[in-house]
Amino acid sequence: MDKLTIQTSTNAYDVLVGGGLRHQFLDYLDQSYDDVLVITDSNVESLYLQDVLTTLSSVKRVNYTVVPAGEASKNGRVYFDLLTEAINMGLDRHGLIIALGGGMIGDLAGFVAATFMRGVDYLQMPTTILAHDSSVGGKVAINHPEGKNLIGSFYPPKAVIYDVETLHTIPQTEIRSGYAEIAKHSMIHSPSFWTDINQVSLEKPLNETWLIRDLIRGIEVKAKIVEQDEREANVRQFLNFGHTLGHALEAELGYGVYTHGEAVAIGMLFAMELSQQYFGNRLPVDAFLQWLKTNHYPIQVANLSITALMNRMKRDKKAKQQRIQMVLLKELGMPVVEEIDDVTIKDALQLFLRKLVK
Amino acid sequence: MDKLTIQTSTNAYDVLVGGGLRHQFLDYLDQSYDDVLVITDSNVESLYLQDVLTTLSSVKRVNYTVVPAGEASKNGRVYFDLLTEAINMGLDRHGLIIALGGGMIGDLAGFVAATFMRGVDYLQMPTTILAHDSSVGGKVAINHPEGKNLIGSFYPPKAVIYDVETLHTIPQTEIRSGYAEIAKHSMIHSPSFWTDINQVSLEKPLNETWLIRDLIRGIEVKAKIVEQDEREANVRQFLNFGHTLGHALEAELGYGVYTHGEAVAIGMLFAMELSQQYFGNRLPVDAFLQWLKTNHYPIQVANLSITALMNRMKRDKKAKQQRIQMVLLKELGMPVVEEIDDVTIKDALQLFLRKLVK
Repeated sequence: MDKLTIQTSTNAYDVLVGGGLRHQFLDYLDQSYDDVLVITDSNVESLYLQDVLTTLSSVKRVNYTVVPAGEASKNGRVYFDLLTEAINMGLDRHGLIIALGGGMIGDLAGFVAATFMRGVDYLQMPTTILAHDSSVGGKVAINHPEGKNLIGSFYPPKAVIYDVETLHTIPQTEIRSGYAEIAKHSMIHSPSFWTDINQVSLEKPLNETWLIRDLIRGIEVKAKIVEQDEREANVRQFLNFGHTLGHALEAELGYGVYTHGEAVAIGMLFAMELSQQYFGNRLPVDAFLQWLKTNHYPIQVANLSITALMNRMKRDKKAKQQRIQMVLLKELGMPVVEEIDDVTIKDALQLFLRKLVK
Repeated sequence: MDKLTIQTSTNAYDVLVGGGLRHQFLDYLDQSYDDVLVITDSNVESLYLQDVLTTLSSVKRVNYTVVPAGEASKNGRVYFDLLTEAINMGLDRHGLIIALGGGMIGDLAGFVAATFMRGVDYLQMPTTILAHDSSVGGKVAINHPEGKNLIGSFYPPKAVIYDVETLHTIPQTEIRSGYAEIAKHSMIHSPSFWTDINQVSLEKPLNETWLIRDLIRGIEVKAKIVEQDEREANVRQFLNFGHTLGHALEAELGYGVYTHGEAVAIGMLFAMELSQQYFGNRLPVDAFLQWLKTNHYPIQVANLSITALMNRMKRDKKAKQQRIQMVLLKELGMPVVEEIDDVTIKDALQLFLRKLVK
């Protein structure tokens, strides 16, 4: 088992990474709970819920609730229903919520924990590669019809329990989604990290040694940044590399058409192209495009309205007074945030989308 | 103008108390904003909104929104609608929200600020005596049909701007509501503070010198406690004196039948009676009852179900595993939190309500 400790402004929490942790995670908590609510989704329920409930058998009162799998559950109605369930179960502020699932569950259950009685303890138990990213750093949120994660908090978990055995069951499209965020972490970190990722093949079975290595390195990159800037006043914005266009694509295509990471991968490609144009530098755009193709990422996004995409980008959380802010790369490992004017974005986006279709 | 500075775990903010601050509050902020959303209610709108908008005339973009006055607006639907308005207005995370109104507006607009794009800056501009309490300490929330303030956060404002001129327009029932919380602050603080409050008459016109003195002392008591325990792990619970029964009464009677402070006043009486029974001590129960009667507090609460009240008290945020926790007084200025068994509460409550009716 590997352990990283994340320092926040108010406390510190451990990220535990290892095989089989779902069977023994109670041993690693620094306090006990009489009352636990497990929130999971309809995919994870049949795979790991029973294991987690068995591990919790010593706890006085355990309840669980299952929401439909998929990003669509991260909405205001499901959020409010979960709060109602927590109240009706008699959960109090000394209780614990466990978010068992991928990033959707982590964000949703985390926001419930952040706001139920002004905050109860919660554990992140990620079951996807993508969630190596979302489960660390304390960002929790639900979506608004107008945009992703527009309603949320910064609310760190008590611990992140990452049982890598649960990664064996995720579908190919989720592997791609997760590795895109690892690729992002690599590019904002260093050329050497990217070089390693560039050699990873996403065909199953995944190389487990490499997977754990990459997950831990990804978490380390993220941890270092969020420790410096928990509430995203400055450097934490770098983690948004690829996300300005990525989020807009997800929303315009319809959530779930491409996975989050797949959309972010296209966003990274665009941010790299724009970086080259902006700084006149050379980035491994071609290598990254090749890696995406080899690993069967969907990269064709025809028939999208440039205007609609740009309107989405202007509502991005980094935006200032409707002016788009992009994370660009001066070189691998040197991200910066730049305000880009509308004409530049529009021209670059037109060229980029046309090129992708080819 | 008086100024107190409140230290939080993550920052510090000023509480400014003075006459006419609504005309000049921008001068006291440590940064400027290009984008401001004022949230107020239908009572305050006609009284002070225009003054505030005039003060904001130098700001690039100012929007405002008015919600119906009354506790009923502190619900999930209005909360969500306000977020939608903020998005549609193009507010971004560099903007500012101003909560202009009483405790309802402070809680509601504060929770919008806490969760809009994971948190934007906000100002508390209280316009009631009661809000001397709710505007300080960073507690923000909305109600759930099952209970008051069950959904919320700890999210400190950038500043509290308390224009005491706005207190001239509040109705008698709101004066009672606010002074009940000041009386609470006095009793958990010291015999001498209570002695002063005991001499205050709430007939209009209020003695303004005394009012400002009492507001500032109340805020000082609160500030000292929240600085020690921002997230209510221990001593902050003392501020809940009178609230365990008070909240239950508000909910059972129907929100708005008695004001918050009026309900809390009855809760304080009950907590004092119970303290005497529990500790065998002597508290100024009779003097407090007399003060309430002299100042026309409504204290008759006939025909309430003891079981229903107790079920509400078990869902109180202090409750542990459905066991009621009460703030009692060992003496004036010495609050403690005690777990009280159901039979004791039930008997005491029966006796108490019967006595009040007489």
